Amino acid sequence: MRTVKMKVEYEGTRYNGWQRQSSTENTIQKKLEMVFSKMERAPLEIQGAGRTDAGVHAKGQIIHFHTSSEKSPEEMMDYANEYLPMDIGITEAEEVHHRFHSRLNAKGKTYIYRVWNSKVPNVLDRKFVHRILEPLKLSEMKEGASYLIGTHDFQAFTSAKKKKKSTIRTIESIKIHSLGDEIQFIYKGDGFLYHMVRIMTGTLLDIGLGKREPRDIESIIKSGRREKAGPLAPANGLVLWEVHY
Amino acid sequence: MRTVKMKVEYEGTRYNGWQRQSSTENTIQKKLEMVFSKMERAPLEIQGAGRTDAGVHAKGQIIHFHTSSEKSPEEMMDYANEYLPMDIGITEAEEVHHRFHSRLNAKGKTYIYRVWNSKVPNVLDRKFVHRILEPLKLSEMKEGASYLIGTHDFQAFTSAKKKKKSTIRTIESIKIHSLGDEIQFIYKGDGFLYHMVRIMTGTLLDIGLGKREPRDIESIIKSGRREKAGPLAPANGLVLWEVHY
Repeated sequence: MRTVKMKVEYEGTRYNGWQRQSSTENTIQKKLEMVFSKMERAPLEIQGAGRTDAGVHAKGQIIHFHTSSEKSPEEMMDYANEYLPMDIGITEAEEVHHRFHSRLNAKGKTYIYRVWNSKVPNVLDRKFVHRILEPLKLSEMKEGASYLIGTHDFQAFTSAKKKKKSTIRTIESIKIHSLGDEIQFIYKGDGFLYHMVRIMTGTLLDIGLGKREPRDIESIIKSGRREKAGPLAPANGLVLWEVHY
Repeated sequence: MRTVKMKVEYEGTRYNGWQRQSSTENTIQKKLEMVFSKMERAPLEIQGAGRTDAGVHAKGQIIHFHTSSEKSPEEMMDYANEYLPMDIGITEAEEVHHRFHSRLNAKGKTYIYRVWNSKVPNVLDRKFVHRILEPLKLSEMKEGASYLIGTHDFQAFTSAKKKKKSTIRTIESIKIHSLGDEIQFIYKGDGFLYHMVRIMTGTLLDIGLGKREPRDIESIIKSGRREKAGPLAPANGLVLWEVHY
């Protein structure tokens, strides 16, 4: 058996997220497994580095799987791209050490959240930006973000129920910059909890709208309570940009 | 009556082009007329600067119309954006002199044609790029484009049947540049004949693929015969970027 690593790009709009579910075939993981199982002529399991939510996109999702196929990684990529739907594509492929694991070996991830801050619509990018009409205060959001950087218990910034698993994560950087009417939030960290990027974004947007103070972030982190943080920002603005190894 | 000028952005994917037709309501002009007629509570005619083909997009189409509405241009824009489908949007609006005409007053237009030149798919931008797998020779295409610049009879570069109307046009510039795997063709000219940008692009792509020589452009222009030029490049790579007044 060989182990293959691939980079996957997808538009999440019409999927129920990344993760295979028993109730629906309409997940990205399932679509990939169907195509590679066809190639393998046997059931094949795909592991992804990040379990993106329904509606979230990816530019650089990383997967791995084990295969007995004799095709080269590039031939496997071409095969998959022929059978995958238009909104999922493989953009890189290589053979890796048999112990490589896309999720467990990931040292970090970069997510980008795109906000379109204008009274005027962005038609061509509408599926990839969250539109906010009221003007956002960039410097306030940047200050708020500074309190999120570092190693913290992010229990307040996840929708996951309290479990035994650690909710401590390290955020290396949050860059917020504007390009015309677009504001991009670029999050880089060692890992992100369920809904964490979207809740951080929702909280920073509250700050940008003047509904909260930048310093509120400190007490939200301290509280460890989800209801203290801001709303869950919509899925469509988010893209899993890169997985770091 | 007041005259209003607006900038319109649209994704052409699901429309039968710009121009109103008796046989279908599924054109961008018709969609706009339906919304503004609703506002006017009377039939209202919209004139656009460029008649984009089925599947062609626009970032900066310009329209004008006459109205007895008492709304401000901005209120009209907000009204239209509320009722227009998600893939059509108004991005600017102003009142202009009653003799302003979006098409007749246009001094020129800029079109951008986007090619994705890679064996790997571009999933997120797939509706806006024409994908070519074989590597394109940039310098050859640039040389070919240089022969198109200037004032010529572009009869060979239009699908329109020979009529009494002049087929002489002036192309001010054609910029071809690559951004990673993307190659953009930026055409600026005083006006473009039916299918002209797509036929020029198809011809330049033939040159980029080595099927023709750059100098062939000269003899194609001279011939005045459509069949001498290259194929019609697909609509989805093209966007009407800006109209100049």
